[in-house]
Amino acid sequence: MTPRQDGKISLQLPNLGSQLSWEAAELRPLLAAFSVELPEAQPPSAEQVEKLKEFAGGDYGHEAVQSVAAAAFLYLYLSVASKYGVLPTVDILVWSELPTGAGLGSSAAYSVCLAGALLFGCGAVSYPLQEGQETARWTKEELDVINRLAFRGEQVIHGNPSGVDNAVSTWGGALRYISGQISVLKSVPTLRILLTNTKVPRSTKILVAGVKAKLLEFPTIMEPMLATIDAISRECEGILEAMTKDPSQEHYSRLEDLVDINQHLLNGIGVGHALLDRVCQVTSSHGLHSKLTGAGGGGCAITLLRPGTAPSAVEDAIRDLTRCGFECWETVIGAPGISAHALPCLKAEVQKALKGS
Amino acid sequence: MTPRQDGKISLQLPNLGSQLSWEAAELRPLLAAFSVELPEAQPPSAEQVEKLKEFAGGDYGHEAVQSVAAAAFLYLYLSVASKYGVLPTVDILVWSELPTGAGLGSSAAYSVCLAGALLFGCGAVSYPLQEGQETARWTKEELDVINRLAFRGEQVIHGNPSGVDNAVSTWGGALRYISGQISVLKSVPTLRILLTNTKVPRSTKILVAGVKAKLLEFPTIMEPMLATIDAISRECEGILEAMTKDPSQEHYSRLEDLVDINQHLLNGIGVGHALLDRVCQVTSSHGLHSKLTGAGGGGCAITLLRPGTAPSAVEDAIRDLTRCGFECWETVIGAPGISAHALPCLKAEVQKALKGS
Repeated sequence: MTPRQDGKISLQLPNLGSQLSWEAAELRPLLAAFSVELPEAQPPSAEQVEKLKEFAGGDYGHEAVQSVAAAAFLYLYLSVASKYGVLPTVDILVWSELPTGAGLGSSAAYSVCLAGALLFGCGAVSYPLQEGQETARWTKEELDVINRLAFRGEQVIHGNPSGVDNAVSTWGGALRYISGQISVLKSVPTLRILLTNTKVPRSTKILVAGVKAKLLEFPTIMEPMLATIDAISRECEGILEAMTKDPSQEHYSRLEDLVDINQHLLNGIGVGHALLDRVCQVTSSHGLHSKLTGAGGGGCAITLLRPGTAPSAVEDAIRDLTRCGFECWETVIGAPGISAHALPCLKAEVQKALKGS
Repeated sequence: MTPRQDGKISLQLPNLGSQLSWEAAELRPLLAAFSVELPEAQPPSAEQVEKLKEFAGGDYGHEAVQSVAAAAFLYLYLSVASKYGVLPTVDILVWSELPTGAGLGSSAAYSVCLAGALLFGCGAVSYPLQEGQETARWTKEELDVINRLAFRGEQVIHGNPSGVDNAVSTWGGALRYISGQISVLKSVPTLRILLTNTKVPRSTKILVAGVKAKLLEFPTIMEPMLATIDAISRECEGILEAMTKDPSQEHYSRLEDLVDINQHLLNGIGVGHALLDRVCQVTSSHGLHSKLTGAGGGGCAITLLRPGTAPSAVEDAIRDLTRCGFECWETVIGAPGISAHALPCLKAEVQKALKGS
């Protein structure tokens, strides 16, 4: 986010090929309608979201990801401006390497970053980065403010999100989600994973509806299966905690067993896909264990890598997965949440995009 | 079984390429050691089985299916002869089209047929077929006697069998097996199935040991999974009963869902195999639903066919499965158990084998 002096607000999303800008004077009349003095639980109304999409304009089409992204930005901007009485005239450039609609929470990462930037822009949170630091994070209290606002962005994008995605983008590490309650796991190791996008489009809403229908049709079968998935999470939590104290190959072996069992159960409740099974088969032929991530039904799979997994085994798996038409990234889970990064530490292409703006 | 007058007993297993015969005078000295006045639960001892394998002779090797089959025959023959004081001098020819070691209960079918024939040979059960009938079955009381003896044959072959296989071969239809207790389901429809042999060899003992090890390692996960498999059986029992009253496509649709869920759970508890998954994938591409049968880990899969499944769909599926190197048969489940068949109703190749003997 960089200040500009011409009374305009711009939003650049180079990875989506989108560039929009508005006059602060245009936005001012909308402020009254976007007061965040709403009860916490009340989501943005469908009318508000529609209005913002129209206002966002652009030639992307009403349901396009660019249009939705612009609406979420405007909602967050107007909410913050309304609450703090400031309309910061800024250039906002969001660089995102996450595929959208793949179940990776790209919208949450987007909402959290916007929330952090806009709250700082209005003076509601500090800027944590000190001279000479490469990255820095906000205080717990500030992160809580960022997370709450980001959830509103998620509501604009998803309608009725669980809040898990924005929470993990805010806090990092790993979270526990039980009956709508989110809590942070105290100690989790950073796990090396391979993330594979099958590129099969899926709808979380349709998948959730399918599970609910099966639960109604076969309650005595679906209930214990869902309970087993829950038991796997709890077992996994214990292993992750033990790993931070005494990491051993035995822990990885247990995690691999749980990955396999969970994948079979997810297939059993009806959120699998033949191409997710393909990912599992291909990685299994390289001795690696995979499961779907997100809502399932397509989207991405994660493959657990051990610290000692040979680069050649990973490269071979990536080659075979790429041949199936999938896209792979090696990354980690259990990484930090929202952080402020010093400009010189950013990747060259991001610096270039920032200069171009 | 046909009587012979030369004081010999012969066992012909043309499908195994095995032909053995003994003098009744040779067998008489063994009678004392095979009295069935043993407690019901006491299985044949390892020494008895070893002795019978040696006695059976043949050039098949000690653990060969032919040697085990001969030992089971001799055990049943001597048990019956000892109990009823008769050594029937007979030719026994067993025609079996079931693959051995594929988890299809071929040994139970063999034991039950031998038990029925030998008990009739000693006058312990009647011969149920009346003039002009094509097939006939024994009374409940007689079937119970046949089943109990057949279980001894299974013990010779498997050591510690559950008794389910000989029970279903005896009674036919479908059975309920709960905590070692077997009971017959009152009304079950005859279901068309495709039976596919992956030809992957597997050991029931090793598979059971694997499940037990997982149960010890992850009790909170494995217990609800096993309970879910149990719930599927109970749900299925209800559907099968409803189908005999009012068969509908809706019932098949529910059975197909349960087949899929069960297959995923069986994979989850660790008794799947990549080639069983292949069967599921191939049949799924023809709109058909499959699961492993028997102990899993290889062996056979069953594919449910609806009464209205087009022959061309089945043929296409069989073609694709055969291309994978599998062997398929279309058959039914819920058929009658042990039956006496009139000679003219047997297949030509069986009649030919009988004449050759």
